[in-house]
Amino acid sequence: MTTTAEPRISARRQATRDRVLEAASSVFAERGFHGATVEDICDRAGFTRGAFYSNFSSKDDLVVELSRRHSEALVDRIRRAGKREHAGTDEVLRDVFAALADDSRSKERWLVLTTEFTLHAIRDPEARRAWAAQQRRVRDELVTVVDETVARQGLTMPIPTELFVRAAIALAQGSMTQRLVEPRSLAVGELERTVLPILLGVDA
Amino acid sequence: MTTTAEPRISARRQATRDRVLEAASSVFAERGFHGATVEDICDRAGFTRGAFYSNFSSKDDLVVELSRRHSEALVDRIRRAGKREHAGTDEVLRDVFAALADDSRSKERWLVLTTEFTLHAIRDPEARRAWAAQQRRVRDELVTVVDETVARQGLTMPIPTELFVRAAIALAQGSMTQRLVEPRSLAVGELERTVLPILLGVDA
Repeated sequence: MTTTAEPRISARRQATRDRVLEAASSVFAERGFHGATVEDICDRAGFTRGAFYSNFSSKDDLVVELSRRHSEALVDRIRRAGKREHAGTDEVLRDVFAALADDSRSKERWLVLTTEFTLHAIRDPEARRAWAAQQRRVRDELVTVVDETVARQGLTMPIPTELFVRAAIALAQGSMTQRLVEPRSLAVGELERTVLPILLGVDA
Repeated sequence: MTTTAEPRISARRQATRDRVLEAASSVFAERGFHGATVEDICDRAGFTRGAFYSNFSSKDDLVVELSRRHSEALVDRIRRAGKREHAGTDEVLRDVFAALADDSRSKERWLVLTTEFTLHAIRDPEARRAWAAQQRRVRDELVTVVDETVARQGLTMPIPTELFVRAAIALAQGSMTQRLVEPRSLAVGELERTVLPILLGVDA
C-alpha cells in the first residue's frame, strides 16, 4: 500500500484488510470458493458488510489480493536464496526448491482455491481479466528474480526465462495436484528438483 | 470390451454406453460437473435412469470412462507417430506435439471437466481412489509408448520416463490452463515444444 497523510488510519485499514483476508482464507478452505459468501466472511472476521465493501470490491477481489500476497512471499524467498553470499548453485537451488515445494496444509488449500478460482475465471469475463492481470504480474516478478539469480550464478539457460517461469508454475501446480490425488505416488518437490535444473542449464 | 457369447447384445450395450457418454460430455460442458445431474444426462441421451444404472454406477464413473477413452486415443496417436517408417526425431516430435497440444474446443472442455473432477476427487475419498487408479493407468500407458519411441529413435533421456510423463502431463495441462485464462499470451503447444525435447535428450 502507498503511504497516506494519515498513517493511523492507514494502519487501521491495513489491519482490517488483514483480518478480512485471514477470515476469507478459512471460509474458502471450509466451503470452497463458490460455497463461501461475503456474509460468511464478514461473520468470521467480525465486520459488517459495509466495512467489507469499503476495503474490497467483491469475493473475486479477495482471491486476487491473497494471490498478490502469496506471490510476494514466494518472490521474496527466492530473491533471498539467490542473494546468499558465497552460496553455490546447489545450495541456492535447494533453498529455492524448498520455497516452491513447501508441503504445508496452507499450500494445499491455496492450490485448491486457485484451481477453483481459475475455473471461475474461465467462465466469467470480469474475473478472467483480473486473474489474467495477476498471473502476468506474478510471472513478471518471477522472471526478474530468476534472471538476477541466473546471472549471479553465471548460468546459461537453454530456454527463454518467460517460458522457464511458465514451466516452473505448471510443474509446481501439476505435481501438487498429482500428490493431492495420489498422496504416496510422488515425493514432495521430486518433479521440480528433477526437471528445473535441466531447464536452468545446471549440469546434473 | 471383451467379446461375449452374445455379440448382438454386446454391440447394443456398447451403443447405449456411447450415447450416454456423448450426452454426458455435452451436459458437463453446459452445466459443469457439479451442475449436471444423472437425470439431465438421461434426458439428453433419451434413456431411462434404469438404462443408465445398468451401464454406469455413478456420474463419477462417466468421467473415469471418458478419461479412459481420451487417453486411449492419445496413446494411439503417439504410438502411430512413433512407428512411422523412416521418420526422423523432428518429424516424430512434430506429430506427437500436434497430438498433445490439439487446440480444439473439445480439448478445452475436457480440461475444464477433468479440473472440476480433480477438485471433487480431492474432497471425496471414493472418487479419489477411482481417479488415482485412472491417472496411474494413463501414466503407465504413456510410459510404455514413450519408452518404445525413445528406443526406436536411439535417444538417451536425462530423467526417468515416469517423471518425464508426469512433467509432460503437468506442462500440457498448465499451458492449456494458462491459455484459457490469458488467450493471447502463449501460442498453442509453445511450452511443450520448447521444454519436452530438452527432457527427451534431443539436441536443439
